[in-house]
Amino acid sequence: MTSNRQPVPDAIMQLGLGFWGSKALLTAVEVGLFSTLADGPLTAKELAAKLGLHKRGTVDWLDALVSLGMLNRPADGEYTNTPATDLFLDRAKPTYLGGMLEMANARLYPFWGCLTEGLRTGRPQNEAKIGEDFFAALYQDQGKLRQFLQAMTGLSMGAAAAIAEKFPWDRYHTVVDIGAAEGCVPVQLALRHQHLTGGGFDLPAVGSAFDDYVAAHGLAGRLSYYPGDFFADPLPAAEVLIMGHILHDWSLDEKMTLLRKAHQALPDGGALIVYDSIIDDNRTANTFGLLMSLNMLIETQAGFDYTAADCRSWMAEIGFRDSYSEPLAGPDSMVVGLK
Amino acid sequence: MTSNRQPVPDAIMQLGLGFWGSKALLTAVEVGLFSTLADGPLTAKELAAKLGLHKRGTVDWLDALVSLGMLNRPADGEYTNTPATDLFLDRAKPTYLGGMLEMANARLYPFWGCLTEGLRTGRPQNEAKIGEDFFAALYQDQGKLRQFLQAMTGLSMGAAAAIAEKFPWDRYHTVVDIGAAEGCVPVQLALRHQHLTGGGFDLPAVGSAFDDYVAAHGLAGRLSYYPGDFFADPLPAAEVLIMGHILHDWSLDEKMTLLRKAHQALPDGGALIVYDSIIDDNRTANTFGLLMSLNMLIETQAGFDYTAADCRSWMAEIGFRDSYSEPLAGPDSMVVGLK
Repeated sequence: MTSNRQPVPDAIMQLGLGFWGSKALLTAVEVGLFSTLADGPLTAKELAAKLGLHKRGTVDWLDALVSLGMLNRPADGEYTNTPATDLFLDRAKPTYLGGMLEMANARLYPFWGCLTEGLRTGRPQNEAKIGEDFFAALYQDQGKLRQFLQAMTGLSMGAAAAIAEKFPWDRYHTVVDIGAAEGCVPVQLALRHQHLTGGGFDLPAVGSAFDDYVAAHGLAGRLSYYPGDFFADPLPAAEVLIMGHILHDWSLDEKMTLLRKAHQALPDGGALIVYDSIIDDNRTANTFGLLMSLNMLIETQAGFDYTAADCRSWMAEIGFRDSYSEPLAGPDSMVVGLK
Repeated sequence: MTSNRQPVPDAIMQLGLGFWGSKALLTAVEVGLFSTLADGPLTAKELAAKLGLHKRGTVDWLDALVSLGMLNRPADGEYTNTPATDLFLDRAKPTYLGGMLEMANARLYPFWGCLTEGLRTGRPQNEAKIGEDFFAALYQDQGKLRQFLQAMTGLSMGAAAAIAEKFPWDRYHTVVDIGAAEGCVPVQLALRHQHLTGGGFDLPAVGSAFDDYVAAHGLAGRLSYYPGDFFADPLPAAEVLIMGHILHDWSLDEKMTLLRKAHQALPDGGALIVYDSIIDDNRTANTFGLLMSLNMLIETQAGFDYTAADCRSWMAEIGFRDSYSEPLAGPDSMVVGLK
């Protein structure tokens, strides 16, 4: 038991207690730490007073966030945001991603506490357990919905920029993003490629957020909103359709329905771009994609994430003449199906 | 917003959703995955049947654990333990550390869900909130206590081996570990240094576990058990006293009391070895130590972790003539006080 060649338990303990650092960040977003620091450096005492925190744990919590790379402490006892936390976790900035982490803090953290029950039953562990529907409620509250859609924009920005770079847009003229939210992806594409027109398709409740976001980027003349339900309604026609962070919410049958509807809406020569935290074909490397699939267990009736090979085989079965996959940003990849 | 020089949100999202991977491991320990795989490779289907899991999430969960380095998948569809998970997470092995992670899963994960309340109130967020005392109950159940003490042994093993190497044991003859649990540290010291005698001091309920562990290592003639309460009773005399993962549980006043009692029990020329996940003096690097201090907020009335500089200043105030600190294994360091 004492040989130096024996395995050490450090990695096991770090992972097993990894929720400590995660929750330290989620609490920071919850209490508005980064929004408060966006106005300038503050001491622990000043932060405790502004945020209503007790002195006992505040310095440890702030220094833990420094050690985790979420804060800086340029002078002893003074804390500032990092460039990334200032950009993404200050509520006053349009780049705020904290809506996603606020949701993770309030909902996913306790729901993942029931992961064992989820694995035993195969059933979701969210509000569905008590007959509620978080997303239906969200769509009825424009304030919360806008913050959620803004977070989706932040999460899609890296993929949007990569899709603008990596897809051969010079061969196409029109593009519609299916499940567009605010329209992050079509806006990035239209900004980068002056010849593109098109828009975004999403539920009617999302329309005003989309229109505002597109107008703020001066693209109201080139991008339109297509309201609808992608199971109940036909998809709009365009040379390129995009489905990002959509397919993984659904069962295999529902995935096939959505892919088939996209195929039907495309002209010959058109393309479908699917992107998600697509799992590597060997299913051993993209931890985020694999855990996202478990999050679909927690959050949905039958959703799951998938590999590029899975998606390409579904596309082939439906009749796409060819397909390929390409990494985008962070854990996201795209699969392109050619009709 | 699209410049490549802008910060990216990946590190924020990975940390904020870091509880996903953590909980995937904690659930694996809870359902006995590693104990089951200790008997040989199994497919996902076989594992689901043995562990009572639904097929929906099982493969994603197993592959996520592969991607996190907690399982291997040597042949497609067959899973095995890694050397480390086999050694530390198989309940049938004496090296089992899972008791610690079982406790983290059942208690700390939900309690850390109240971190915000802890930071707002400065009050513990464990059973104390409803007037219960987890550790008092633990000490009344020999079965659970033994598993907990075994986990403490696993967690102390790296530090024990490092203390055996790094401290100048040739200058001393006797050593007593204060809060010894099973006696991991004195056993490692006695195995490595044939001239040492001494033993372990802990609560009376721990005595039989200590005696069994020491006897199993053939050291009953050299190491004795000293039952007692380190606040109510005097500490045993020895040339070297050790306090590992003890001081951080207590308030500053209580820490000073314990250090003073150790100083009193030592002869001139004696030494006190304190070890913990001691925070680096700059409080920016040892994330585990800083988060452990927040865990003391969650778990204790007034405990906190500390830097080597803190500990050395307390030792100087009490009358130790000199002190120094040295890293041990993983996040642990020791501070040595010389009388």
